[in-house]
Amino acid sequence: MDAENLKQLLESVRAGKMPVADALERIKHLPFEDLGYAKLDSHRALRCGFPEVIFCPGKTVDQIMGILERLTAHNGPVLATRAEPHVYEAVARRWPEAEYNTFARTITFNAPAQPRHDGYILLATGGTSDMPVAEEAKVTAEIMGHRVRTIYDAGVAGIHRLLQSHDEIFEANVIIVVAGMEGALASVVGGLSSRPVIAVPTSVGYGASFSGLAPLLTMLNSCAAGISVVNIDNGFGAGYIAALINQGPTKRKE
Amino acid sequence: MDAENLKQLLESVRAGKMPVADALERIKHLPFEDLGYAKLDSHRALRCGFPEVIFCPGKTVDQIMGILERLTAHNGPVLATRAEPHVYEAVARRWPEAEYNTFARTITFNAPAQPRHDGYILLATGGTSDMPVAEEAKVTAEIMGHRVRTIYDAGVAGIHRLLQSHDEIFEANVIIVVAGMEGALASVVGGLSSRPVIAVPTSVGYGASFSGLAPLLTMLNSCAAGISVVNIDNGFGAGYIAALINQGPTKRKE
Amino acid sequence: MDAENLKQLLESVRAGKMPVADALERIKHLPFEDLGYAKLDSHRALRCGFPEVIFCPGKTVDQIMGILERLTAHNGPVLATRAEPHVYEAVARRWPEAEYNTFARTITFNAPAQPRHDGYILLATGGTSDMPVAEEAKVTAEIMGHRVRTIYDAGVAGIHRLLQSHDEIFEANVIIVVAGMEGALASVVGGLSSRPVIAVPTSVGYGASFSGLAPLLTMLNSCAAGISVVNIDNGFGAGYIAALINQGPTKRKE
Amino acid sequence: MDAENLKQLLESVRAGKMPVADALERIKHLPFEDLGYAKLDSHRALRCGFPEVIFCPGKTVDQIMGILERLTAHNGPVLATRAEPHVYEAVARRWPEAEYNTFARTITFNAPAQPRHDGYILLATGGTSDMPVAEEAKVTAEIMGHRVRTIYDAGVAGIHRLLQSHDEIFEANVIIVVAGMEGALASVVGGLSSRPVIAVPTSVGYGASFSGLAPLLTMLNSCAAGISVVNIDNGFGAGYIAALINQGPTKRKE
Amino acid sequence: MDAENLKQLLESVRAGKMPVADALERIKHLPFEDLGYAKLDSHRALRCGFPEVIFCPGKTVDQIMGILERLTAHNGPVLATRAEPHVYEAVARRWPEAEYNTFARTITFNAPAQPRHDGYILLATGGTSDMPVAEEAKVTAEIMGHRVRTIYDAGVAGIHRLLQSHDEIFEANVIIVVAGMEGALASVVGGLSSRPVIAVPTSVGYGASFSGLAPLLTMLNSCAAGISVVNIDNGFGAGYIAALINQGPTKRKE
Amino acid sequence: MDAENLKQLLESVRAGKMPVADALERIKHLPFEDLGYAKLDSHRALRCGFPEVIFCPGKTVDQIMGILERLTAHNGPVLATRAEPHVYEAVARRWPEAEYNTFARTITFNAPAQPRHDGYILLATGGTSDMPVAEEAKVTAEIMGHRVRTIYDAGVAGIHRLLQSHDEIFEANVIIVVAGMEGALASVVGGLSSRPVIAVPTSVGYGASFSGLAPLLTMLNSCAAGISVVNIDNGFGAGYIAALINQGPTKRKE
Amino acid sequence: MDAENLKQLLESVRAGKMPVADALERIKHLPFEDLGYAKLDSHRALRCGFPEVIFCPGKTVDQIMGILERLTAHNGPVLATRAEPHVYEAVARRWPEAEYNTFARTITFNAPAQPRHDGYILLATGGTSDMPVAEEAKVTAEIMGHRVRTIYDAGVAGIHRLLQSHDEIFEANVIIVVAGMEGALASVVGGLSSRPVIAVPTSVGYGASFSGLAPLLTMLNSCAAGISVVNIDNGFGAGYIAALINQGPTKRKE
Amino acid sequence: MDAENLKQLLESVRAGKMPVADALERIKHLPFEDLGYAKLDSHRALRCGFPEVIFCPGKTVDQIMGILERLTAHNGPVLATRAEPHVYEAVARRWPEAEYNTFARTITFNAPAQPRHDGYILLATGGTSDMPVAEEAKVTAEIMGHRVRTIYDAGVAGIHRLLQSHDEIFEANVIIVVAGMEGALASVVGGLSSRPVIAVPTSVGYGASFSGLAPLLTMLNSCAAGISVVNIDNGFGAGYIAALINQGPTKRKE
Repeated sequence: MDAENLKQLLESVRAGKMPVADALERIKHLPFEDLGYAKLDSHRALRCGFPEVIFCPGKTVDQIMGILERLTAHNGPVLATRAEPHVYEAVARRWPEAEYNTFARTITFNAPAQPRHDGYILLATGGTSDMPVAEEAKVTAEIMGHRVRTIYDAGVAGIHRLLQSHDEIFEANVIIVVAGMEGALASVVGGLSSRPVIAVPTSVGYGASFSGLAPLLTMLNSCAAGISVVNIDNGFGAGYIAALINQGPTKRKE
Repeated sequence: MDAENLKQLLESVRAGKMPVADALERIKHLPFEDLGYAKLDSHRALRCGFPEVIFCPGKTVDQIMGILERLTAHNGPVLATRAEPHVYEAVARRWPEAEYNTFARTITFNAPAQPRHDGYILLATGGTSDMPVAEEAKVTAEIMGHRVRTIYDAGVAGIHRLLQSHDEIFEANVIIVVAGMEGALASVVGGLSSRPVIAVPTSVGYGASFSGLAPLLTMLNSCAAGISVVNIDNGFGAGYIAALINQGPTKRKE
Repeated sequence: MDAENLKQLLESVRAGKMPVADALERIKHLPFEDLGYAKLDSHRALRCGFPEVIFCPGKTVDQIMGILERLTAHNGPVLATRAEPHVYEAVARRWPEAEYNTFARTITFNAPAQPRHDGYILLATGGTSDMPVAEEAKVTAEIMGHRVRTIYDAGVAGIHRLLQSHDEIFEANVIIVVAGMEGALASVVGGLSSRPVIAVPTSVGYGASFSGLAPLLTMLNSCAAGISVVNIDNGFGAGYIAALINQGPTKRKE
Repeated sequence: MDAENLKQLLESVRAGKMPVADALERIKHLPFEDLGYAKLDSHRALRCGFPEVIFCPGKTVDQIMGILERLTAHNGPVLATRAEPHVYEAVARRWPEAEYNTFARTITFNAPAQPRHDGYILLATGGTSDMPVAEEAKVTAEIMGHRVRTIYDAGVAGIHRLLQSHDEIFEANVIIVVAGMEGALASVVGGLSSRPVIAVPTSVGYGASFSGLAPLLTMLNSCAAGISVVNIDNGFGAGYIAALINQGPTKRKE
Repeated sequence: MDAENLKQLLESVRAGKMPVADALERIKHLPFEDLGYAKLDSHRALRCGFPEVIFCPGKTVDQIMGILERLTAHNGPVLATRAEPHVYEAVARRWPEAEYNTFARTITFNAPAQPRHDGYILLATGGTSDMPVAEEAKVTAEIMGHRVRTIYDAGVAGIHRLLQSHDEIFEANVIIVVAGMEGALASVVGGLSSRPVIAVPTSVGYGASFSGLAPLLTMLNSCAAGISVVNIDNGFGAGYIAALINQGPTKRKE
Repeated sequence: MDAENLKQLLESVRAGKMPVADALERIKHLPFEDLGYAKLDSHRALRCGFPEVIFCPGKTVDQIMGILERLTAHNGPVLATRAEPHVYEAVARRWPEAEYNTFARTITFNAPAQPRHDGYILLATGGTSDMPVAEEAKVTAEIMGHRVRTIYDAGVAGIHRLLQSHDEIFEANVIIVVAGMEGALASVVGGLSSRPVIAVPTSVGYGASFSGLAPLLTMLNSCAAGISVVNIDNGFGAGYIAALINQGPTKRKE
Repeated sequence: MDAENLKQLLESVRAGKMPVADALERIKHLPFEDLGYAKLDSHRALRCGFPEVIFCPGKTVDQIMGILERLTAHNGPVLATRAEPHVYEAVARRWPEAEYNTFARTITFNAPAQPRHDGYILLATGGTSDMPVAEEAKVTAEIMGHRVRTIYDAGVAGIHRLLQSHDEIFEANVIIVVAGMEGALASVVGGLSSRPVIAVPTSVGYGASFSGLAPLLTMLNSCAAGISVVNIDNGFGAGYIAALINQGPTKRKE
Repeated sequence: MDAENLKQLLESVRAGKMPVADALERIKHLPFEDLGYAKLDSHRALRCGFPEVIFCPGKTVDQIMGILERLTAHNGPVLATRAEPHVYEAVARRWPEAEYNTFARTITFNAPAQPRHDGYILLATGGTSDMPVAEEAKVTAEIMGHRVRTIYDAGVAGIHRLLQSHDEIFEANVIIVVAGMEGALASVVGGLSSRPVIAVPTSVGYGASFSGLAPLLTMLNSCAAGISVVNIDNGFGAGYIAALINQGPTKRKE
């Protein structure tokens, strides 16, 4: 439904190259494939720069397999998130090349062999328990062609642990901060860097963390400029945004 | 209702020095004076180490004056918190020596001329706007006989500002951290000190700070051990607790 | 406290060019100026790419003037946010060149005459009432040297209004979406663009919007990848992040 | 307790056709049958246009069977919602004609063979995972005699998927929108249709969806007029209301 | 962007009656007028059956006057909601025929002289204090051409007051229930009627009503089928939906 | 709609003493008077033992005067709550005998000269600032004919103040506890008494009291049996319930 | 610590009948037995009119057995609430006379053979699923010597079901209303009765009932006077309070 | 990063005793050991007075064993909290001297044989069910070298149980109060003591305790001065802070 496409279509109609009914049909049916239970946005790789990603919860194994069947038809990179082990087993029987990250619970295929973008995304976590979310972010950014470096367990209660990674913070193009409990790490990192910080609150913690509400509020209220926030435990979202930022606006000139 | 007092009273009764009815009366009426609208716990200075403090909101000027009249009868230090200027004016007409801290909105008299305790309490704030709450804590700790040092506007987004006060943090006997917005300062300070940290969330901020809920949750979830929390904007409470801690348990041996 | 600076300092000490005491002093006092009520992070322009910004609420006019006095010493761009008209009046008496945006309540000086970065940031709002927040974002991005285009009142209930700006959405380097009430605009825009979207929930609305909680949750839960969120009504934060993204990682190679 | 019935009863009494005690008894006992653990509102089909529906959670299989026994005595359509498979098994042993929808977890009998009302109800979902709630709505509207069309997985992040169903949206008599996560679909559909939209938030999502609170607030705050909301995951309620609307007010003239 | 219009446009292009550039322009500019601060959806009367309604909060008097200027160009009915008296004064100077409902704070013009739809919408409130919200609903439904009957102050604590309006409840085509505090009226009315009930929680109450949260939750959890809910205090929304329902689906056949 | 009345009515109809139409009319119109903006439940004194009470917020002075005009026609006791001073002034002009309690903001007339019930209701508050709510409870119970004793400012932080009122607690027939901040007084009193305790949380406090939510939750979770809770600041409700309890079930035997 | 006991003790001391040390010991040790993990308040039957009740969750079977061993030493009625079946099995092995109510999960012994109080407590529930909570209330009131009548499944959506129990409502000394979902039953019953109503919200429901928050708020905001509320699912508390009320204040004269 | 250490390092460099590169390395690598998944802050015992404590949830057994391997290298006391039994089993195989507290779920080694500090910490709980949290606090304070006394099951509903421990309360250096449900115990204890009270809300309770939110708010709003609060169920934090307070500020003079 891009204006350019619409213009060409109208031109074809005007030139008599395409009957009106056909034009109308094309406008209606081009951009996605309808599997009944899902509408695959196959146009998405063009429009948004990356194919559709499968969020597994709430889908049956059959539905996931059906969607994968279509997505793999394009030979592009494939990413399924929050996949339970039995989902991976079904997938691996059909696509033995599929990889499973047990921490992140991601399934990937056709990942690029090498990073396709310069620089790196830095990924820092407050604690060891934030790793599953961090790994989801890492897998996402990597399959989108980016280099990721990690600093795990760098909580602010031992601020020197973080400060000694100062160089890595300073040199990063984008930073993802993954933290539960009080989530203060984002503010400290945000104050040390001049680049955008994507903050991911996690549900790690207990009591008054209220399943991640505490770090979510902390991160939204950060006194450091340059920080934006994604949903609790949304490692995928953070990795995706970081990739878009690292890819840079200059790519649009092509 | 102290066991020791009860024992002496029982002894007097047994010895026939005091009739039963009198004993019963004394037990009933000793510890406070009833002004009708307020019960002054005049026994409190003995029991808790400091006279009653007047929390002004919800009390009329006449009620406040009535309470002060009784409290000043003992010549001890007097502290009234959250006093509006017109309350101070009424007080100052009767007790010209009363002092008013316009930031903290406290009224004080008979403050000790010199600190009576060794060492100092450190008071750090995240931002300039946290000053009213911090000053309330400072006035409270000072009237209780403690020395207070301050580091204002040391938010974690410019962590080097805080780190350069490292010596003062390290040497303090107790630390009060006052912070709004995301309240992350408490965790960073907690990680730098081996002494107790009293964290005071403030209602400074907007939007998702939800009037101080965000820093309150942050501080409760701190990954640094040694941090306990008081109510939002409760500078008085923090100053009071810090004073009790700095005064030390050894005083109980006297 | 940058590793490079520390290294040079150590070299100078080793070379006998600088006495130890001096070195220690320099490390302690370089990065900020302490006004008592505020610690001005004058090093920030170097570290983070833009000078400190003054958030006016909770500061007295005298404090604001004191901070401006120092900041203007460097002739860099100056931005004060959420300034009430009487603050502007005081500022304009001293710096007649200061400009006031009555919608955004910002005070600016020394803004760059021309955008210094290619491309543009697109700013879309759900309704007319979201303009104050949107203007704060616009002023912020512009003073940081970026070009901003706006689409005001493009709420999803009349989706065709938005779709007809499809070209502008497609060409933008970064997009800021400002929306109150249900905040659904971010998801729709996110699905149309391949670039990062910064979503700003606003407190516009009533009842179950709970002062912006509703659009905040909407935006955090967006099913469109590429969206990150800032605090309710935080136009400044969104403008700042968008500027960092538009400036691009390639600048770091210089 | 319908005025008309009361009037007839009074007439009978006045005419001496019915003794007072009998009249009183009839008024007391007519409208429902008391099973001890449940009061079956057998009058409901007359008063509200559809027999009672059994909400299974919190009822034992014996209680459910007992209620069904009475309801089936009237040969009307029967609907039980949120029935676990073991409930269905017990029911199917007694009424082999009972049907079970495994997505919706509904048990139905005596459904009308053909729709009895003109036009159709459109049912749209944001994602594949919203299907169980959508199917509950579908089963409900169908057993009440309505035709239902569905558009599944039409989330706003790929707005073109929805727009290409424009005709179906435009022609529908009523629309049910079922969506979790941010729930923005209701607003977009509401803006495209001139007919009432019933919005059903679902508990699909994680983190800051807070078990459906996020889409609930989104839908309540919709900037599109014509949208009303039912409880989280309440597919039954939405189907029921849509049926009432589609049946139209003109039926009352009969 | 209606499929029918698009088809005709394509036909004109194909027939050579309209140049491509013109067609593109028309598609882009037809449906709304852009006032800069607002995009007037002038196509809305066609698409949704009623012209745009002005929600006044957050708009300046000048903006409201500018929007009215355009809307009145079509001579259709005009409705502005939540208008403060000074807004009405400005409007009345320009359009002396404008009417102001002081309870509802609505401004109306060009209202239809007679109801254009059969039957009536019943409007019931729990208490006297719910009248402003109820009147907003009433004004809205009336300007859309519907007859409205009211039962004010029929709270469930005196259930006989409500029951004696049984006939009016039974005969209504749609019912709007407006109630604050505990909001139980909707469930009772819902159980008495076989027609759709639109429930409007109000912010009337104190303490644990939490500004309308209590009746909102009550209404969402209603055990009576047939009830859907709009935002707290949203009288306009309820009136609008009730009008759509009363107008009936059969109108779509025209 | 009392069964006894209905029976007599039916008897009259059967006996031919009353035409059916008349009977129907009487059933419809007896129990209340409809003022348009309010339905006065004049039958309430019979049904519930006390005439209707006027809750003033959200009503105009004219509406309040209109309601009072009807209520005073019966010469029973009159109570209006949350009346602002200007309401009282209007009332006092018409009924000079009306009394105003400035703390409680109640207007009363025709109060009984003497308590009509044995024993007393004890009213205890946590602090001086809880007095307005407590006075509302006191005025309510007194106008209903009960004796009330008060213990003001008996917060649990000075537990001896409360314990010395042990006799008054032990002898009371019912106890009302009014407390803000943490609301712990109810549990302590509940543990000391064998009679029902009505707990009233107040909005006194700040920060994490969240306008009375904290004491509300405290009281609902009390580990002492025998405590039930009313809405925040609902002194009227507490006084009313305490009066019903003190009046005792034996009255029903009359 | 009852004043009367203290007085007698003092008399004994004065009369030389009891040495001071003994008196002190008695005051310290009389009122409870300390099992280490629990302090049994054996004095409670005297002070509060009923022995301690065992709330089982969080206690081991051994602890429960240990407490029962002591409580049964007094031959008074015994009540244990929220006991899982395996707890009952252990108890029944030692006290074969113990009874288990599988709905309420209560264990009882030594219940009075006959009600010891006149009149009855009425117990009404909104739905069948509220039975477990209602049964807990029933068992509690019965073991305290009261007669209980029940009306189950009388939700307000079929208001006639409730109205036909009008006589039973009118004659009851106290009413307990147990309801989940929207909890509106309490208000309707409260309006029909002149006696105190104890409302018990239940966690029955889903979605926006938020585990009982919805009916809790409904009940707290009831527009019917005479209603007080206990914790969600707290059938025990409601039964206990109803018993205290039904027992009546006149008992205190004994 | 302690100023003193930095000064010495600079001196060594200046004196030519240490090359610049070495100095830089030492600053970077001294304070912690990086295990990849965790950064062990081995400097912590010096900086904060106690070695790192392992919070087990979210860590694999392998990670826990790896961390313990390093921590035990220093022969200091070791504490692991919230350890499930299978974690203990793995630990006990490697370190047979490890002890497991089944209530607290703590693993400890190398605990000091005797308390190293004078006086004692008093630990009071509201009920038997609060024991697991209390035991965690006890184990923590003991391994840090403090004497702990306990008063279990001293809830405020039987206030005499608490008052008879008056002497122990009065003599304690610090008090930890652990309470769920309404959490009122902290206020009562706070009023009886002149020493700091650390309040720990627990998730014990049901319904409106909202998993510990109720006692958390109660404790934050305490009207007793001297109370600070830690996270829900955070026994470790409370024990740690109490230990720091009991250790006293005078230790810093050494």
